Amino acid sequence: MSAAVYCALLHHPVRDRAGETVTTAVTNLDVHDIARSAHTYGLQGYHVVTPIDAQHALVRQILEHWRSGDGKRRVPERTQALAICEVAGDLERVRHVIQEREGSPPVVLGTAARALPGRALLGHQEARRKLERSERPWLLLFGTGHGLTDRLLHECDHVLAPIRGVAGYNHLSVRAAVAILLDRLRGVSS
Amino acid sequence: MSAAVYCALLHHPVRDRAGETVTTAVTNLDVHDIARSAHTYGLQGYHVVTPIDAQHALVRQILEHWRSGDGKRRVPERTQALAICEVAGDLERVRHVIQEREGSPPVVLGTAARALPGRALLGHQEARRKLERSERPWLLLFGTGHGLTDRLLHECDHVLAPIRGVAGYNHLSVRAAVAILLDRLRGVSS
Repeated sequence: MSAAVYCALLHHPVRDRAGETVTTAVTNLDVHDIARSAHTYGLQGYHVVTPIDAQHALVRQILEHWRSGDGKRRVPERTQALAICEVAGDLERVRHVIQEREGSPPVVLGTAARALPGRALLGHQEARRKLERSERPWLLLFGTGHGLTDRLLHECDHVLAPIRGVAGYNHLSVRAAVAILLDRLRGVSS
Repeated sequence: MSAAVYCALLHHPVRDRAGETVTTAVTNLDVHDIARSAHTYGLQGYHVVTPIDAQHALVRQILEHWRSGDGKRRVPERTQALAICEVAGDLERVRHVIQEREGSPPVVLGTAARALPGRALLGHQEARRKLERSERPWLLLFGTGHGLTDRLLHECDHVLAPIRGVAGYNHLSVRAAVAILLDRLRGVSS
């Protein structure tokens, strides 16, 4: 019996190109693609996190369309995937929701496309073993923009090693990075 | 020494929800995300395939923006990824371009999210071994819409097994499916 796994896509606090802390805008396809990947890999929930109220309304409108509107009639598989998607104002709220639901606070696993000075990173195979043996829920954090801030990563229980490209290039989209990491942590090989 | 690997995203001939053969429209983020994933995993080229001339112009406009326009100054990593992206009118053209460049025609590897009656599917680990040992170039085909047509898949040299979800659900976006399969075929585990 594997742990309950959740993921969250953070739009704040994340870095811009210069390393400054910013708030990014929600991208429609991030809501869809990550919900579909999360549901495919059996995650219990996918939280879109932004402090901006108007963006909450936008995400709820997307969810409403696919959960009960025209979208549901047209693409029922998408309804299923988006059923696990929720909106939250900050990470604290996500942790609270998971704790309420699962009975214990989640182990928080940060992700980054870069090395973090002074911080040991968790290999993907080791993370997979930890997930499989854990009795606590897990929460995987993904950052938009140029990634989660150092400060936030240092507050995580663990930080996953970056996905290494074969050519020294690893500027994956967040949608691709989520898909690859969920597959490495939860996928069934064939 | 591993084979040269290319991928192509087909907008025709692909299936719609009812299984009919259609031509889909190009999605901006498919161009970006798949170029970034392909470059991360060291692919030699990424071909966006559509028979519609107006869509060629659209893709070229996207490429131009990121290769030499404002985009290059703002996000140089994206310029690098999009440098491997090309447009083609059909699969025959892609095969021809690869043969000209590599000196032999590519082994064509189709992908599908479903089983194909009467056709043995290639496991991902076996496909990885074949790629590693091959002296010929390889071309991975991905379909938009509801996937490549049966007829096209039956013409491929091999068809990859679908990505299996853990919950009987596998409606991944094509962007996510490409990322996961490239990681399985070419990724360096950690």
